[in-house]
Amino acid sequence: MDIPGPELPNEPPGGTHKTDIAIIGAGPVGLFGVFQCGMLGMRCHVIDALDQAGGQCAALYPGKPIYDIPALPAASGGELVGRLCTQAAPFDPALHLGQQVTALDQDDGGRWRLRSDADTEITAGAVIIAAGVGAFAPKRPPLADIEIYEKQAEGNGVHYLVRDPAAYSGKRVVIAGGGDSAVDWALALADEAMSVHIVHRRDKFRAQPESLSRLHEKTAAGLIEMVVPGQLSGLKGSDGVLTAVAVDTGSGKAREIAADALLAFYGLAQNIGPIAHWGLDLDRNRIPVDPTTAATNLPGVFAVGDIAEYPNKRKLILTGFSEAAFAAHAAYEIIFPGKALHFEYSTTKGLPTS
Amino acid sequence: MDIPGPELPNEPPGGTHKTDIAIIGAGPVGLFGVFQCGMLGMRCHVIDALDQAGGQCAALYPGKPIYDIPALPAASGGELVGRLCTQAAPFDPALHLGQQVTALDQDDGGRWRLRSDADTEITAGAVIIAAGVGAFAPKRPPLADIEIYEKQAEGNGVHYLVRDPAAYSGKRVVIAGGGDSAVDWALALADEAMSVHIVHRRDKFRAQPESLSRLHEKTAAGLIEMVVPGQLSGLKGSDGVLTAVAVDTGSGKAREIAADALLAFYGLAQNIGPIAHWGLDLDRNRIPVDPTTAATNLPGVFAVGDIAEYPNKRKLILTGFSEAAFAAHAAYEIIFPGKALHFEYSTTKGLPTS
Repeated sequence: MDIPGPELPNEPPGGTHKTDIAIIGAGPVGLFGVFQCGMLGMRCHVIDALDQAGGQCAALYPGKPIYDIPALPAASGGELVGRLCTQAAPFDPALHLGQQVTALDQDDGGRWRLRSDADTEITAGAVIIAAGVGAFAPKRPPLADIEIYEKQAEGNGVHYLVRDPAAYSGKRVVIAGGGDSAVDWALALADEAMSVHIVHRRDKFRAQPESLSRLHEKTAAGLIEMVVPGQLSGLKGSDGVLTAVAVDTGSGKAREIAADALLAFYGLAQNIGPIAHWGLDLDRNRIPVDPTTAATNLPGVFAVGDIAEYPNKRKLILTGFSEAAFAAHAAYEIIFPGKALHFEYSTTKGLPTS
Repeated sequence: MDIPGPELPNEPPGGTHKTDIAIIGAGPVGLFGVFQCGMLGMRCHVIDALDQAGGQCAALYPGKPIYDIPALPAASGGELVGRLCTQAAPFDPALHLGQQVTALDQDDGGRWRLRSDADTEITAGAVIIAAGVGAFAPKRPPLADIEIYEKQAEGNGVHYLVRDPAAYSGKRVVIAGGGDSAVDWALALADEAMSVHIVHRRDKFRAQPESLSRLHEKTAAGLIEMVVPGQLSGLKGSDGVLTAVAVDTGSGKAREIAADALLAFYGLAQNIGPIAHWGLDLDRNRIPVDPTTAATNLPGVFAVGDIAEYPNKRKLILTGFSEAAFAAHAAYEIIFPGKALHFEYSTTKGLPTS
């Protein structure tokens, strides 16, 4: 059973928006936050660095069954996200996908202002941070001056994904990593690039057997050179242009490989990134909150899901749902100050009719 | 979409049982407790006063849609309960339905011992109270000495439901109430009983139109006498045998109606009942708990769902699910002392195979 759910429309980047609640993170907990806020009469704008809703569930395990969502004995990550989108849809959330919130501050009137790296600005009466353990980003090798070479255009310098394989035509390419991405791109670029070196810390690659035999064929044919064991140890260049990659091969002396481009495929890591700079208290990259309101140290800013921390915290999606409900109720008092909340069961209250 | 779920087998009453966790209450939150405990390797026995699993959802609104269960955009109470039974089933819980826990105490070894009004005894390492706002019981009219006449066998004295209509054959019956139950039983007993009086505080009955016209027919035919407006004001009898029911008809003088039996249909109320006598701290019939462990003041006894109280508590099924997860994790430390809990996502860990 796969319930894709309605496509929640994605807003074009940029622009200035005003809303009740800004939710940072469109994972399961953020999506359920849209529903809970909606049930309390509050509209949400949601921002996520990924270009689809669903967070880890959609990005990392869309097809794997999850067993511990209450009353969903087994649902794939994709089904779960689809169902949550369906549930959120009647409340007409605005989604801003594929952009990262870079700044959060409070204006003179006490409203919160968010800005994204796509120049979107949102002001909101309250903010719910449902950012998991941060935005996904490629793991960067810890090399001096790497940020210089990351600025070079594709086909030169340091990159973590390939958008246009043709950019590497005729180039000297070093590929680092031992998984499918490293092997597949080595194979894909071997014929067109001037040279391809693949650097991995051991001689076992975690790739499809079919890809591995092709890797050995192309190595035998001189189209790829394997540098194993090898670990990246430095970058050489001049005037911001990469010229060589230094590799520690265990011999005691670094080997220098002349290179126009380094492609590093070390997987994705989550990084709380800009969140660290908004004045929030942090405890090992998580945000301490009151467990019954999800309130952070910043008034009107709440944190829910994996990024929220309190004693006995369990990193379960289902506890994140509950935290989203707590945050929505606490935010209600900010959005509608002095207005009593009359509790009604959802079965009595129903949903908005469109 | 109606998913009835597997019938979780009901244990015969009586007997002595030993288990990891005893759960009091088989409503949605208690059922999810079975799953959460099961995922942590703990088996559960569950006791509920109702004769079916599902609590209020199954008893009061099995067909009404609930909208605020995360990732179930609309599910009837019956579907929700069926899904939770399906989810609990792999963990082989033992259900003891149709019986109320009357006593809870701790044995010398520190294990908890529960006894029910059906002579079932369960010892458990920890107890999770998921009793909603208590067991369902009929509302009793506030009449002096009523408990004396409640002890009479069916067909005589005071009762709140009809098990065997034949017991009322030839009897003088007073029926109190203005809803479907009162009207339907007045109609059903009118032909066989010696007399049927129906007492209601006003002349409007909340019953099916078809039933109401039959009520008026039988009244016109002298088979039923309506006593409206009328309010029960006392019971008369001797040696524990009911002989008459006193009714205040607003005239200033109580009317006495000769009667062998009084059937009172004033609906169901929830009552925490025996739970009040187990040494638990109580705050207006709710049990204060630590919001992140669900721990009560009794070590090894946890409370979750509507009966659990803490600051900013929201009486939502979804927050009860989260509380059940907290309780299961906290109980794990009692059942498996000193054994570290290695967190695994359910998608990695999977379910037990039978």
